[in-house]
Amino acid sequence: MRVLVPFDAREPKTRLDPVLDPDERAAFARAMLADVLGALRAGGHAPELLATAPVESDAPVTVDERPLSPAVNDVLADREQTAVVMADLPLVGPDALARLTAPAADLVLAPGLGGGTNAVLARDPGFRVDYHDGSYRTHREWASERDASVATVDSFRLAMDIDEPDDLAEVLLHGDGHAAAWLREAGFELVTGERGLAARRD
Amino acid sequence: MRVLVPFDAREPKTRLDPVLDPDERAAFARAMLADVLGALRAGGHAPELLATAPVESDAPVTVDERPLSPAVNDVLADREQTAVVMADLPLVGPDALARLTAPAADLVLAPGLGGGTNAVLARDPGFRVDYHDGSYRTHREWASERDASVATVDSFRLAMDIDEPDDLAEVLLHGDGHAAAWLREAGFELVTGERGLAARRD
Repeated sequence: MRVLVPFDAREPKTRLDPVLDPDERAAFARAMLADVLGALRAGGHAPELLATAPVESDAPVTVDERPLSPAVNDVLADREQTAVVMADLPLVGPDALARLTAPAADLVLAPGLGGGTNAVLARDPGFRVDYHDGSYRTHREWASERDASVATVDSFRLAMDIDEPDDLAEVLLHGDGHAAAWLREAGFELVTGERGLAARRD
Repeated sequence: MRVLVPFDAREPKTRLDPVLDPDERAAFARAMLADVLGALRAGGHAPELLATAPVESDAPVTVDERPLSPAVNDVLADREQTAVVMADLPLVGPDALARLTAPAADLVLAPGLGGGTNAVLARDPGFRVDYHDGSYRTHREWASERDASVATVDSFRLAMDIDEPDDLAEVLLHGDGHAAAWLREAGFELVTGERGLAARRD
């Protein structure tokens, strides 16, 4: 199985702009990517990066400057079994990834908060991604229209893509890798926020 | 196993105030409760309500006006195996609940967004809840101090307590019960929001 990790190497994580400056966003994005690559390798996979610009990595890198969906779909057209796992899932570990690859469905989806598709495993070579808002529903509809079997993974760790300042608390609460360490070194800590605990720094 | 569902029958879901009036909040809270009770029964459980005021229900109701933690702890003191499942988890189904009861640990925890404890199964009769912000960590620390074994359930459906307007989209995206139907009848639909899809009504 080919495992693809798309990575925005140009201007990653712009929605963290209220709490991280551009250099910090780039460093934090790299830390999250390291966690995802590490989890995939711990699960026995050999992940490949699909980056929007050249990037140094110990994983093979394909650079494709196009938007996410056509870039991913070029890879999907190439092989039969492909998993696409987002680079901003620092809570993901081998256990959650094993639940993505376990179901014997044509399409296995891990939805993200807000209805995105944080991870997908396509066993049907005809599958193509469409990463707009609510892509989880679109991908399910694709399966339904093709009579392809679909399974959904009920995982908080796969659902929790780190996009916004509110999300950082989850990294500090549940993360034990590079991203959590980076946040702590950058001075973030857990304080009482509007919804339970929040990540803040002075 | 005793299964307890705490329910605020007086002023539920105050943080949904920006989008629901008090009567609507009460009705929506009841719809979510119906979903949770239904999921528990589908999983073979006989849930009991622990309510802050008298409430009509087809489940047995104990009324305890005290804050949540002492009210729950009075019940925990009474029996050996008790699960406490929050009433605002309308995405929970029998599959997610089975993952709460499957691990053979002294304490099984399902964390919520922000570090709360959305569901807990206590096999250790000495366990007591402490439902402040970040209670998931406190409950883990309790287990660590007592050398009790602890398991965490990685479930989006258990993690997704519906507290804030932003959360309603998840009910429309993934719910198929009373709460999702109530939102649709109240005029909510999915539109593009700041983080993927959001629930809005005119």
